[in-house]
Amino acid sequence: MKKNKFMDIAIDLSDDNFDKKYGGPFGACVVKNGKIIGKGINRVIKDHDPTAHAEMVAIRNACKEMKTHDLSGCELYTSCYPCPMCLSAIIWANIKTVYYGNTKEDANDIGFRDDFIYEYIDKLAVGDKNDSVLKLSSMNREAAIKVFEQYKNDKDKIIY
Amino acid sequence: MKKNKFMDIAIDLSDDNFDKKYGGPFGACVVKNGKIIGKGINRVIKDHDPTAHAEMVAIRNACKEMKTHDLSGCELYTSCYPCPMCLSAIIWANIKTVYYGNTKEDANDIGFRDDFIYEYIDKLAVGDKNDSVLKLSSMNREAAIKVFEQYKNDKDKIIY
Repeated sequence: MKKNKFMDIAIDLSDDNFDKKYGGPFGACVVKNGKIIGKGINRVIKDHDPTAHAEMVAIRNACKEMKTHDLSGCELYTSCYPCPMCLSAIIWANIKTVYYGNTKEDANDIGFRDDFIYEYIDKLAVGDKNDSVLKLSSMNREAAIKVFEQYKNDKDKIIY
Repeated sequence: MKKNKFMDIAIDLSDDNFDKKYGGPFGACVVKNGKIIGKGINRVIKDHDPTAHAEMVAIRNACKEMKTHDLSGCELYTSCYPCPMCLSAIIWANIKTVYYGNTKEDANDIGFRDDFIYEYIDKLAVGDKNDSVLKLSSMNREAAIKVFEQYKNDKDKIIY
């Protein structure tokens, strides 16, 4: 069995949250230069926050700690394969290395919709919109695009 | 031009944020029964939070207001097509109707990576892992799965 102290901590966090019931049994931590800079547990129920997955909370805590939105050079350890929300947040945060314990099939097996959301996104890519999951409609791009045009011409912008 | 007061507000929020520069020029609002219950602008730079996209902030504010993680029956208006993080958060929150202004190609055109992340996820689905974007490695599932087994047998769990 491959052992790692940071993965042990992520799994311990998931186990603690099974007892606390702040949300699903998930834990994660962000590591920089061999030190934990942010921990997270799933807080969806406790915080009334559907975005408060363990990885999201760990990323937000690490960013708060480091006073940056950019976690380049950091690694993330999570007790379960990230859902598409968390996976995207990891990429937005410029984290390039992730270690996970359970698989997304394991998450599906205990009742979570990770796999279902991946499938929805994958079908979107080939133009197969499942409106019963989510109905996405375009509206008034003519007005919205004006702000983007201003932004495009702005020389002081910070791209992240 | 299709007009709608909630889309106007989402676009106005994106325009305000172009001036404020709290993050990218994006705005969103969550609507329930014809009333706004949560607004959001992109706060990535200001809050040091890579997860603080307009839709995420609007969802978190709406959930705080309603004291629930479940936004069933709500609609979301956003000045730009949601990135995969926001799209997944919308599904986790049980929102089933989304109206967007700008497209993800428009976002790409002003320098954001929405399209790039969609592409990464789409390739993952067919087993094409791009390790230069993100290296995902399995580690110690044998330990992680024990927590899931406990959870599976727990009769008091709340599934979201």
